[in-house]
Amino acid sequence: MDVPFRALINGKMQSHIDVRDRGLAFGDGVFETIAIKNGKALCWDLHMKRLMDGARRLGLPPPDPILYTDEMHILCGSIPRAVLKLIWTRGVSERGYRATGSDLPTRILTLSAWHRYPAHWGQEGVAVRLCRQTWSRQPALAGIKHLNRLEQVLARAEWTDEYQEGLMRDDRGDVISGTASNLFLVASGILCTPDLSSCGVCGTIRTCVIATARHLQIPFEIRRVPLPFLIERAEEIFLTNSLIGIWPILRIEGHGYSVGKVTRKLHDELIAQNVVAGL
Amino acid sequence: MDVPFRALINGKMQSHIDVRDRGLAFGDGVFETIAIKNGKALCWDLHMKRLMDGARRLGLPPPDPILYTDEMHILCGSIPRAVLKLIWTRGVSERGYRATGSDLPTRILTLSAWHRYPAHWGQEGVAVRLCRQTWSRQPALAGIKHLNRLEQVLARAEWTDEYQEGLMRDDRGDVISGTASNLFLVASGILCTPDLSSCGVCGTIRTCVIATARHLQIPFEIRRVPLPFLIERAEEIFLTNSLIGIWPILRIEGHGYSVGKVTRKLHDELIAQNVVAGL
Repeated sequence: MDVPFRALINGKMQSHIDVRDRGLAFGDGVFETIAIKNGKALCWDLHMKRLMDGARRLGLPPPDPILYTDEMHILCGSIPRAVLKLIWTRGVSERGYRATGSDLPTRILTLSAWHRYPAHWGQEGVAVRLCRQTWSRQPALAGIKHLNRLEQVLARAEWTDEYQEGLMRDDRGDVISGTASNLFLVASGILCTPDLSSCGVCGTIRTCVIATARHLQIPFEIRRVPLPFLIERAEEIFLTNSLIGIWPILRIEGHGYSVGKVTRKLHDELIAQNVVAGL
Repeated sequence: MDVPFRALINGKMQSHIDVRDRGLAFGDGVFETIAIKNGKALCWDLHMKRLMDGARRLGLPPPDPILYTDEMHILCGSIPRAVLKLIWTRGVSERGYRATGSDLPTRILTLSAWHRYPAHWGQEGVAVRLCRQTWSRQPALAGIKHLNRLEQVLARAEWTDEYQEGLMRDDRGDVISGTASNLFLVASGILCTPDLSSCGVCGTIRTCVIATARHLQIPFEIRRVPLPFLIERAEEIFLTNSLIGIWPILRIEGHGYSVGKVTRKLHDELIAQNVVAGL
């Protein structure tokens, strides 16, 4: 049964926002995309933490986690599977970039159907494109899941169904992430993920994978990942996000990889922790 | 008499948009801010051209200039002075960065009061801040007036009323623009404006000033403007946008400048052409 779309905006069941909202005008806000499984919002605390961190870094008023939690329960009930999206914007203001400081933020929760991906993508792996569209480097915005996402929209427009994801680099040629996922690789037995201090989004599953690697005592480092290092040195590669969980990478355009032991171990562990939904 | 806010969205008098609009979700759209004087939209053709150019570069369906023109007349009538804003987004789509190609774009026109700036800012000049917040370099988005404007929001948050504008640099230290305006300077008798091939917005008044300089045979060049070149070499400096027209710069933090002949000549010419509203 498909989940009908519904939304709560500032506590009211409605699906429209004021056209003067700064979220639309400037992308002046942050968001979260959350997997709902049997009425439970997976990694809820991590998502709330990131929403609050992003709001703080943009100078937005802090969102109230209790309100968001209450409304998450109202919206999700005991629904078996759905996608919950949270948005927090600086709200309606006068025209112009200046925020008045008295702006009333807009609190949005939306619930949508979760269209499942084929199970073998998670089991056997996916093929990815190497996108031409780059990430620009901007430390002030790096890591934040803000509403300025045109680079990823343009990267995603480079293919239709030939690939399951695309990898994006910065203007120095370092690989940063997928268009909607974080990247991990294993090289010389060390689990690595790209440094996101200049660009990219710090995903919640990325955070979980890092914590799990520490817990399992898997050698781990955050580092710059030049493309040749990824292509030539990686023994295992995988992608993460809240909806896909972990997808091993089988192929980056012409280069082949296989699903490795570290990837399988982390995948099993995340499912055991109920951090990702599994099948 | 203050102009009450009103909006036309996809041809209907309404002021709310669907919360699933990609303009809100990703900043996936373009916009224009236009001065209305005695029912006339100043530089209308240039604004429509930029909207269409931006849409093309983002792969949005092309906006229909006839529809926008008709609706501009409906909304503005013979109003003496107001600000018209146009927005064109990729419309409502499924969750995720991918555009389906069958998206129905959202066409927005809003009319707001034009709060006048003090007349002496245009006559005698303004004081500007040197912002810490930089522009990131992204050729794919440079020049376009798209809806991803967080860098300018953060730059504008660095001061309240101490300055009338702030100058933004890129990560190499080149001066690019104001937070909401383009920059011109005169050095060794040559009118210069920063190269916008990596970042910034190509303003319509910038385009008018360049055309007018050519017409008046004022020596002109588009170039990189490192901060020391601006601070030490500029004989005149001014800012442009559709609402301010031309503002001479009197002071960049501790450095003083005076209103020069080239600035006055261009200002008079733009008013004579009815490109800016004047007083």
